[in-house]
Amino acid sequence: MLMEGLVEQLEGIVGRESVVRGKDKMESYLFDETCIPVRPSAVPDCVLVKPANSMEVSRILRLANENKIPVYPRGGGTGLVGGAVPARSGIIVSLEKMNRIEIDGENLMAVAEAGATLGGLLKAVEEAGFSFPPHPGDEGAQIGGLVACNAGGARAVKHGVMRSFVRGLEVVLPTGEILTFGGKLLKDNMGYNLMHLIIGSEGTLGIITKVVLRLNPKTPYSLTLLLPFNSRHDALNTVPRILRSGVTPLALEYVEKELMELSAEHLGEKWVFEGEVFLIAILAGEENVVYSEAEKLSQICVENNGLEPSVAERRDEQESILRIRSNIYTALKRDSMDILDTTVPPSAIGRLADAIDTIAEKHGAYIPVYGHAADGNVHSHIMKRDAEKYEAIKREIYETTISLGGTITGEHGVGKIRVKELYRFTHPKKIELMKGVKRLFDPNNILNPSTVLEI
Amino acid sequence: MLMEGLVEQLEGIVGRESVVRGKDKMESYLFDETCIPVRPSAVPDCVLVKPANSMEVSRILRLANENKIPVYPRGGGTGLVGGAVPARSGIIVSLEKMNRIEIDGENLMAVAEAGATLGGLLKAVEEAGFSFPPHPGDEGAQIGGLVACNAGGARAVKHGVMRSFVRGLEVVLPTGEILTFGGKLLKDNMGYNLMHLIIGSEGTLGIITKVVLRLNPKTPYSLTLLLPFNSRHDALNTVPRILRSGVTPLALEYVEKELMELSAEHLGEKWVFEGEVFLIAILAGEENVVYSEAEKLSQICVENNGLEPSVAERRDEQESILRIRSNIYTALKRDSMDILDTTVPPSAIGRLADAIDTIAEKHGAYIPVYGHAADGNVHSHIMKRDAEKYEAIKREIYETTISLGGTITGEHGVGKIRVKELYRFTHPKKIELMKGVKRLFDPNNILNPSTVLEI
Repeated sequence: MLMEGLVEQLEGIVGRESVVRGKDKMESYLFDETCIPVRPSAVPDCVLVKPANSMEVSRILRLANENKIPVYPRGGGTGLVGGAVPARSGIIVSLEKMNRIEIDGENLMAVAEAGATLGGLLKAVEEAGFSFPPHPGDEGAQIGGLVACNAGGARAVKHGVMRSFVRGLEVVLPTGEILTFGGKLLKDNMGYNLMHLIIGSEGTLGIITKVVLRLNPKTPYSLTLLLPFNSRHDALNTVPRILRSGVTPLALEYVEKELMELSAEHLGEKWVFEGEVFLIAILAGEENVVYSEAEKLSQICVENNGLEPSVAERRDEQESILRIRSNIYTALKRDSMDILDTTVPPSAIGRLADAIDTIAEKHGAYIPVYGHAADGNVHSHIMKRDAEKYEAIKREIYETTISLGGTITGEHGVGKIRVKELYRFTHPKKIELMKGVKRLFDPNNILNPSTVLEI
Repeated sequence: MLMEGLVEQLEGIVGRESVVRGKDKMESYLFDETCIPVRPSAVPDCVLVKPANSMEVSRILRLANENKIPVYPRGGGTGLVGGAVPARSGIIVSLEKMNRIEIDGENLMAVAEAGATLGGLLKAVEEAGFSFPPHPGDEGAQIGGLVACNAGGARAVKHGVMRSFVRGLEVVLPTGEILTFGGKLLKDNMGYNLMHLIIGSEGTLGIITKVVLRLNPKTPYSLTLLLPFNSRHDALNTVPRILRSGVTPLALEYVEKELMELSAEHLGEKWVFEGEVFLIAILAGEENVVYSEAEKLSQICVENNGLEPSVAERRDEQESILRIRSNIYTALKRDSMDILDTTVPPSAIGRLADAIDTIAEKHGAYIPVYGHAADGNVHSHIMKRDAEKYEAIKREIYETTISLGGTITGEHGVGKIRVKELYRFTHPKKIELMKGVKRLFDPNNILNPSTVLEI
């Protein structure tokens, strides 16, 4: 139950029009994109506030901290592990009003408020004549959330995930201090790097209010190369050969025909390419370089039992392939129990995929598999039809992943639904250190409680 | 004073031949490369041990922790801020025997023990047909130290500093636990990222015993481009234009004629190039790409009042220019009080350099300036002749740096000689959090005490 007078005090901080009460008016703030069967249920007895600046965020947190009221920072709500779902009565802090974006062309940096969307950032960056290489998920995702969750996505092969692009942060601590970390700086060794601790902490150590992101120069040309194979084994064995060749694509995805057909159908489109499985490579750079890279990749593919590659150069062709790739998740989601996010050393991805097939066979289950091949990041879906075997299948996939030197989450994070597994597969001393860090930043455990850690 | 029986117990752990006592026998382990006038004096009442594996490191730390004896992890001793100098009686732990390097060609990773040298790593990587882009300082530096100090160096423009390459760590905590973080993984979001907290913690949170580093494919061709200008203003104004052009060099250095002549003389060589100041760009990649990039850079340079560029293609020519560049530091060092390491947003580097000139003029001092231009990382030397004005000059340079949005240390770290300034220019809450982190990892404050923080 929320404290008496809380709403009035919040209205005093952010203004009456920025405080929302009542389940019907804030329904869309109570869940995220986690598959429904495993999504934690939200406690609707919450109050939603929409601060306009860091000072308001600070005052909200001071109020909450004094009264030990849980606070749930809210971005675009595109998370897949229930991290943003309010599990107890508390204050939902949506950063949506803080959505300014500035491009600093002299320093090749963008300064984005936490509530700016990925789509907004990409647009601003493109208009200013630069590029932001990663594409870490849904374009409705907000920058604060992307940094808090260290989002990855497909375009992380060449330039890395969100963490690689963050140069500075403004963060409001649960105790109310507004701190800045880093800046428009490419090198900074001024004491312990608390900024990197906050990146990926899933909104549990502080509320990120502003982010400085490194940009790249605009790439003049890009193409998408579809490399078809008749077997998974051949396709995945080709991945390390591509990476060693000196050609590093922006993205290098692995997909199977059946899923691409399903996704295309879901979109009302058609998947027309021959081949049982595919690598999809995005290449970007100077036109002549991209062409010679595409030729090199095609050559490597053919040498490894690949079929005839297809090149998509027109923006609409490229977008169609990538849209179908991206919507595998959407097409499967309705029937999914859970989407796993295991990641292994890139050379072990074939072994992981095969092990998942064996697990599926053993349980008579259907476990579709696809992923960011060059990152070793495999998404596998456990389907509702296999609900009874869900725990067993998940455990076996996780155990296999760990035995291959992997991690149970490469990009989605721990959220609320993987806490148990984080504990199970992490050295107890590391859990103790993580809990200590949490207590240090958030002594009253008000910020996004039950996410990442149970304190 | 060290405890009785310590040496015997250490001999029991690492063997008699791996324990060294007596100032004369361990002289070279008592100091680092910090300028002598500001270098903390070592307490010679130490015992030096050379463990052969992580288990021995763990047993040493458990022994030290139980008895609250300071422990000084020791790498190559190439630090510039006194971080490795034992300031109280204690145990110096040199990792030099742990120097194995494995190259994993399938995953494009190197696994190096902490005591492997940078030179050893570069050699192993080259022999295996890969590249490790950064060159963070002296090749006698050891990998553990480079990671502990998040070393930078010249070749950080395109691919980043050490932090960007670390994928996994093995670390022994002061309390003795041997923990691994990350792995041969390109994506990992399994809880708070303690690995990035340890990177850059300067040997105060744990002893790094093993490092997994990402490698790049071999670059088939490289050249060094010397871009001369008549004025600093023109040279530094050209830097953002280069970076926006789409050409991102491996390194982009700024030097002045006078210092290059001094360094060449120091090496018994000659600096033969015309121009008052220079940008030095290292380009690497496919030969035709590198050529077209060099042409583009030359063009940009000429458009910005540059003189005729010179191209060094032969390895010995390239090495000569870079050797002279690297030895500015060596040539100046004998006469230096301190070498500053201020870093600002790249576009502000000209303003910082000009401000340093103004400060020099005001104090009638000589303050040579050079640096990693594209990183905004400026090294300025305060000379012995200006010893009386040292504190004032340093303070003014730091204040200017901070007012430009910069940091007092981009790559050298805090060590023992910048603790006061870290405190001065850091929000007290951040210092409190850093101290909390230190206590969490090292409750008895045994590990490299007085480095980074005074507890």
